[in-house]
Amino acid sequence: MRVGVGDDAAVLVPTPGRLLVVTTDVIVEGHHFTAALSAPADWGWKAVAVNCSDVAAMGAVPRWLVLALTVPEGTPLARLDELYAGIGEASGSFAVDLVGGDVSRGPALSLAITALGEAERVVTRSGARPGDLLAVTGPLGAAAAGLGLLQRDDDAARRLLGRFPALAAAHRRPCPDLDAGPRLARAGATAMLDVSDGLAGDALHLAEESETGIEVDDRAVPLAPGVREAAELLGMDPVELALGGVEHFVLAVALPPEVAAGQAVCGRFTRDPERRVRLTAQGELPLAGMGFDHFRAGC
Amino acid sequence: MRVGVGDDAAVLVPTPGRLLVVTTDVIVEGHHFTAALSAPADWGWKAVAVNCSDVAAMGAVPRWLVLALTVPEGTPLARLDELYAGIGEASGSFAVDLVGGDVSRGPALSLAITALGEAERVVTRSGARPGDLLAVTGPLGAAAAGLGLLQRDDDAARRLLGRFPALAAAHRRPCPDLDAGPRLARAGATAMLDVSDGLAGDALHLAEESETGIEVDDRAVPLAPGVREAAELLGMDPVELALGGVEHFVLAVALPPEVAAGQAVCGRFTRDPERRVRLTAQGELPLAGMGFDHFRAGC
Repeated sequence: MRVGVGDDAAVLVPTPGRLLVVTTDVIVEGHHFTAALSAPADWGWKAVAVNCSDVAAMGAVPRWLVLALTVPEGTPLARLDELYAGIGEASGSFAVDLVGGDVSRGPALSLAITALGEAERVVTRSGARPGDLLAVTGPLGAAAAGLGLLQRDDDAARRLLGRFPALAAAHRRPCPDLDAGPRLARAGATAMLDVSDGLAGDALHLAEESETGIEVDDRAVPLAPGVREAAELLGMDPVELALGGVEHFVLAVALPPEVAAGQAVCGRFTRDPERRVRLTAQGELPLAGMGFDHFRAGC
Repeated sequence: MRVGVGDDAAVLVPTPGRLLVVTTDVIVEGHHFTAALSAPADWGWKAVAVNCSDVAAMGAVPRWLVLALTVPEGTPLARLDELYAGIGEASGSFAVDLVGGDVSRGPALSLAITALGEAERVVTRSGARPGDLLAVTGPLGAAAAGLGLLQRDDDAARRLLGRFPALAAAHRRPCPDLDAGPRLARAGATAMLDVSDGLAGDALHLAEESETGIEVDDRAVPLAPGVREAAELLGMDPVELALGGVEHFVLAVALPPEVAAGQAVCGRFTRDPERRVRLTAQGELPLAGMGFDHFRAGC
């Protein structure tokens, strides 16, 4: 970086020969986080994690961030200090630099982060081929289970949160495996995306963009520890937390069979674009309709 | 651009050898724009213009944008269509591509845009030297005068707006001269910034960052047509609209005397950092205290 926060703009020196990957995500108090369930430092952390995860999902290494913040009148400065501390901790953990920003008044606290990364080769959503396998880069459902338990907040929920502290942490301080994106890109992944709104909807996105069919095998979807117990308490199907829940911070990736060894395979891409299904203990079900659309669903 | 809106992130191909310039600015309904004074297409236009102007102020050419939008529940889709139309019109006019975005619910309509540009050589705020001249790349005060008249909205104000339509347009659809930044960078500008909060405060920023003194000659500050008439009606000093008002979309630039021919020179950088003054008809006045701080002033 040549010039950082404080001038009209940041000045960066791109690595010669690399592609530049850019993404932006905004998180808003009352919609993506609330003071009842997490701390200001967590909000800063999450805003960084969300964006870095999107960069990694292209096969790129996140390098730089800028932040546009809106702050309600009367917000204590200590709260902003905590927010920035969380951004700083996440930036350190994920090895990215905050190089610029803007602050404005607004009716809610919101953090719009733009992340920039670099890649030798990018992997889009549209390259999966029939015969490729569907894999995920980590277990699913932890954040959705954690959020469900935090919202329920009764004795039983608190006991489970004590037994599985990673569930609340997955909601408050998600830790995407940012190395997985570039590693799988180098290994030959044909399509990749960040599972933000549930594996069902995002597997469907891969199949739609790649014009293939897809089978997701419910029984092979890896669930994070505690997700089964949380689902039971919440009266939900654990697989639905993985296939429908939010905030997984895991990549869904299409891999040719010859490079899929050691990966968490839970489905495969097929020839018939009309057939996009879940294989469940009750037989085949359609994949459509399980995803979670932020905008339509009001979150 | 290799991949645009719709994947996890946009993929861009930087021009070899260029520096990458990045800036972000957020504008919020009720703070930076209101439906009473401008149309949704104007808000989109302005969000693009603000960011491109910051990129140009580094001496760079703006190339790409990403948008993080928050939208209140119940916002008519037609309003969003208009907003995007304004973004599209501005992107066309300023020759930049919108390559990505995110939409979330939020209590107010807000547009956080990040703009990326490229430069062979950047000009920061800190390179001015004693003896350099202060110039501006266009006349000042039009948007502040336009906003004042639109807010006043009586017969006299409407008559003046009819006589000087560029005043309202300067508030609603600012047209920064984006070529001026790279051109002056090539010509040898030593420091440069976007006059966003009044020439007094921004000239002071240049002097502070460059550790010089500065004299701004009130009588040489170019005022946009109609600013004198608007100021008279509004009961203000016209120079104060230029030195203190908002949204000028003009660059303030430090130029060695040998390259300042033909520029609108209105001050000079001096040796003594203790002396940062306005030269007025009433004698010397301090420059400090005329600027406009978005955050402290509540806008």
